Amino acid sequence: MANSRSGDSVIERLVRVLATFDAEHTEQTPSDISRRAGLPASTGHRLVSDLVGAGLLERDDEGRVRVGMRLWELATRGSLALGLRQAALPAMERVQATVRQHTQLGVLDGDQVLFLERLSHPEAGANITRIAGRLPLHASSSGLVLLAFAAPAVAERVLAGRLDRFGPETIDDAGTLRRKLAEVRRLGHAVAPGSIEAVSTGVAVPIRDRGAVVAALGVVLPRGGESDAVVRVLRDAAAEVEKTLSRSSTILATFES
Amino acid sequence: MANSRSGDSVIERLVRVLATFDAEHTEQTPSDISRRAGLPASTGHRLVSDLVGAGLLERDDEGRVRVGMRLWELATRGSLALGLRQAALPAMERVQATVRQHTQLGVLDGDQVLFLERLSHPEAGANITRIAGRLPLHASSSGLVLLAFAAPAVAERVLAGRLDRFGPETIDDAGTLRRKLAEVRRLGHAVAPGSIEAVSTGVAVPIRDRGAVVAALGVVLPRGGESDAVVRVLRDAAAEVEKTLSRSSTILATFES
Repeated sequence: MANSRSGDSVIERLVRVLATFDAEHTEQTPSDISRRAGLPASTGHRLVSDLVGAGLLERDDEGRVRVGMRLWELATRGSLALGLRQAALPAMERVQATVRQHTQLGVLDGDQVLFLERLSHPEAGANITRIAGRLPLHASSSGLVLLAFAAPAVAERVLAGRLDRFGPETIDDAGTLRRKLAEVRRLGHAVAPGSIEAVSTGVAVPIRDRGAVVAALGVVLPRGGESDAVVRVLRDAAAEVEKTLSRSSTILATFES
Repeated sequence: MANSRSGDSVIERLVRVLATFDAEHTEQTPSDISRRAGLPASTGHRLVSDLVGAGLLERDDEGRVRVGMRLWELATRGSLALGLRQAALPAMERVQATVRQHTQLGVLDGDQVLFLERLSHPEAGANITRIAGRLPLHASSSGLVLLAFAAPAVAERVLAGRLDRFGPETIDDAGTLRRKLAEVRRLGHAVAPGSIEAVSTGVAVPIRDRGAVVAALGVVLPRGGESDAVVRVLRDAAAEVEKTLSRSSTILATFES
């Protein structure tokens, strides 16, 4: 798209500006934004002004800028993220009422797991996951489920790439990962103890739409909390979500990540 | 911003393209998008291609396009919508467990109420509200709360504008609306029976951050379901959300809509 006349470079800069906002950077000055986006200050300031003008960013009295409600609205109201999350929320609440730790919903996006929803008990243990946050596929139970059932090309790409360690037991070699994925396919669920935090274990199951895995439903528990009962609770919840999805006119399965 | 060199017209077209997506239009062809965005087909197709290239839109095998997970992620992860919704969700779940109809969270945005969250019982009655959907301020209990506590300029603008009727009892004249807003301020909550659907009543209370009203928490009930008990449940929930917000480093109240 490099030389299109429709302004790809503006879109590229827009993405770089938006990418500077996250849970640690909800309010930034235009200078912060320019620096973190790698844009010359004048370019960054002008783009921020235009985005504020269009309502995609908002500016407070002191000149700090944040993501606009209008952008959230436009990005959410027709999105697959909202539809899937709405289909899953009642079942997630039932999981959460039983397990009372962290219950989360993730999808495969760009060779990572992107989390669409997370419910957490106020006194639950450690969990790095955030809504609209990402984790590498090999390093989380949700990611292992998504990778195990992904198109073979995705698995091959991940197996050929870097398998960084995040926790004491992150799978960091291709052979072990390949065997783990086969195990996940055989068992129908993934358990990932100590993969990110030594004190936590993730357990996740696939959610299917028209036969294809479209999401992973998982819990994060204190280490040792994994059990057949937890897997059963997750499977029942996944079946409930699948029933809801099967009644929906939107077919998630036809969209490739 | 009309003549800025940073590509405002691309941003303006981008907004028009994104605005064609909603709950009824989650998947569209580039031709649909161009037509609904009011763009020449060639311009629309090119912009859609660029947005697909940047990951902001996604395209399936049959050429249909939808809002990309990447756009949802960028618009969500640093947004006030997410922070406020996260702060409110546990309290909303408690309201929903008691009232078992519809529980919703709305904010003032552009002289309308924008809904950030909605929890609904599968067998609950009629409710037009959608997540990332909007309603006019004068026509819903959440809107009346937000309007009653908004800056005077907002109320004057709404009072001077069109007050369209949506249901049999929508307030559609400025004098009645002015008296209703005074009542909402005096009581500390809004009840709006038959304002949108003849068979439903909305009840809403304000949520404050550092003294300023930043959101409305409401329920939609079958007509006649409003009661002091419901108002108390909402007030207790709002107080709980306010406690969470007061511990947060993000000060919602400093941002004007």
